[in-house]
Amino acid sequence: MNIEMIKAAAQRLAPVVRRTPMLSSPFLDEMAGRRVLVKAENLQHTGSFKFRGGWSALSGMPEAQRVNGVIAYSSGNHAQGVAMAAAKFGVPVVILMPADSPTLKIANTKALGAEVVTYDRLRDSREEIGARLASERGLTLVKPYDDPLVVAGQGTAGLEIVEQAMAERVGKADVLIPCGGGGLTSGISITLEGTNLRARTCEPEGFDDAARSLASGKHEVNATQGGSICDAIVTNSPGEITFPIMLKNCGSGLVVMDNEAMRAVALAYQRLKIVLEPGGAVALAAALFHADEIEGDAVIVVATGGNVDTDVFMRCLETL
Amino acid sequence: MNIEMIKAAAQRLAPVVRRTPMLSSPFLDEMAGRRVLVKAENLQHTGSFKFRGGWSALSGMPEAQRVNGVIAYSSGNHAQGVAMAAAKFGVPVVILMPADSPTLKIANTKALGAEVVTYDRLRDSREEIGARLASERGLTLVKPYDDPLVVAGQGTAGLEIVEQAMAERVGKADVLIPCGGGGLTSGISITLEGTNLRARTCEPEGFDDAARSLASGKHEVNATQGGSICDAIVTNSPGEITFPIMLKNCGSGLVVMDNEAMRAVALAYQRLKIVLEPGGAVALAAALFHADEIEGDAVIVVATGGNVDTDVFMRCLETL
Repeated sequence: MNIEMIKAAAQRLAPVVRRTPMLSSPFLDEMAGRRVLVKAENLQHTGSFKFRGGWSALSGMPEAQRVNGVIAYSSGNHAQGVAMAAAKFGVPVVILMPADSPTLKIANTKALGAEVVTYDRLRDSREEIGARLASERGLTLVKPYDDPLVVAGQGTAGLEIVEQAMAERVGKADVLIPCGGGGLTSGISITLEGTNLRARTCEPEGFDDAARSLASGKHEVNATQGGSICDAIVTNSPGEITFPIMLKNCGSGLVVMDNEAMRAVALAYQRLKIVLEPGGAVALAAALFHADEIEGDAVIVVATGGNVDTDVFMRCLETL
Repeated sequence: MNIEMIKAAAQRLAPVVRRTPMLSSPFLDEMAGRRVLVKAENLQHTGSFKFRGGWSALSGMPEAQRVNGVIAYSSGNHAQGVAMAAAKFGVPVVILMPADSPTLKIANTKALGAEVVTYDRLRDSREEIGARLASERGLTLVKPYDDPLVVAGQGTAGLEIVEQAMAERVGKADVLIPCGGGGLTSGISITLEGTNLRARTCEPEGFDDAARSLASGKHEVNATQGGSICDAIVTNSPGEITFPIMLKNCGSGLVVMDNEAMRAVALAYQRLKIVLEPGGAVALAAALFHADEIEGDAVIVVATGGNVDTDVFMRCLETL
């Protein structure tokens, strides 16, 4: 991975990507004790940064391969990003989702133009089903983070951050990034090389595999697999491609509590007028509630996504 | 008023204004039967477009006048826009608010750096108090819409809309604008002259003074003064400066029901990941629920503000 791959992805993305704004509020600045600049990727197509990686993957593969279509495993943001990218290219897309996924999520993914194939979470192997479909139909698997084209796509957000930080006359600052498999973190970290900005991972307590892996220098895994309110960014361990990049470029990882993430969702609603999911708000939570673990006159926060269930969102608002 | 005044305001605003994004969702397009492009001015500083007019007024007056400070009457978006503009200029600002305003609103206005002077809504004349303070301290009154500098500031949103519509390859389209006194509507309407875009007012049922005034050609007033859930955009009648411009440039006015505005708030949350107040969502409501009264292959919607009380917002989400 290198910056040229990210710049190439940015050129492919230019006609379709939304250049998301950098938001701020004096109220948040005061809480954090420094300027807080929020890169609002929840406003990206499909409500998360994942569209960047999806479009990068589809636009970066040979046309002869793309026309056969793509496949992704996910019930979340990655699926939606890949589905919309495929729809805009007019090529087939299959999304493999657990049969017990919320009806609305399945309907939304279908409405984006995807063929949804469901599997039994306990009985079936999604990898087997995916491999069979891919082979039968010539579909290309788009992985959520361990794919250079996907990392390059997510990294395009970092190119925008560097430009926007300059426009805001930011000096030295940490760039806080909600981290799952590390596609976004590693991609952004490459774009920050040679600047006064430094990438740092943010995770919810109990699912801090990136923070622990960065500390130990090797892949650490989480004790439990699911059940976090920050589900959108929970993975078991950093990716194979992404982790070496993170280890080279990132500062120590930050960890926030679920109630801090929920409060950050509420403050983003109140002060920035944006809708975040708890996982997408962990970096804002770190900026506001872990200020003593951060360096710089300003802090840049990536708000990764806003695909939140309404009952969860309402519970967050009740913290106000 | 003319386009040159708006372009001059845009130059003064350039270093500070947030260029708000144009958002969209395939789900909203399908509901409306055409492309829906949402200019998200709720993401502007202070959560509404009013910062544009406030900054334009302060930056457009002679420095010797500005240093004495400004005064505004309002408990809402205009006050916050003026207060932040004054704070950024480092000049005094007095906001006259009813003594029974919500505590949080008073606290927020103070936190933006304003001196809040309260008055008794029934017993006092805010105009008298304002005139006395202005005369004693040499403050300049910044009116919410009947001021050429304010109209020019709000019109800068229109310059951005024209550019963004071209980038989105919009052909012919109506530009739907939540309308109170008409500062935003008249300003934007000037920037649309000579384009394929046409400005149209949007108001809540029962407070449709602009629609009726546009129909009759003279200033009509509302039968009742308050009590709309769309309170942010309710005025008694179009402004003196603004109405002749609207009459010359605008198509017929659109009127939506309160429950349509509330549902538009919910859909903006769900599909665009933004927070709107009901008054700021009447144009989106018109685009979605009054499609047969609109012309064009696309419709452009201005989302004017997001300063909503949380109990009202939650009631809106319950319509999902």
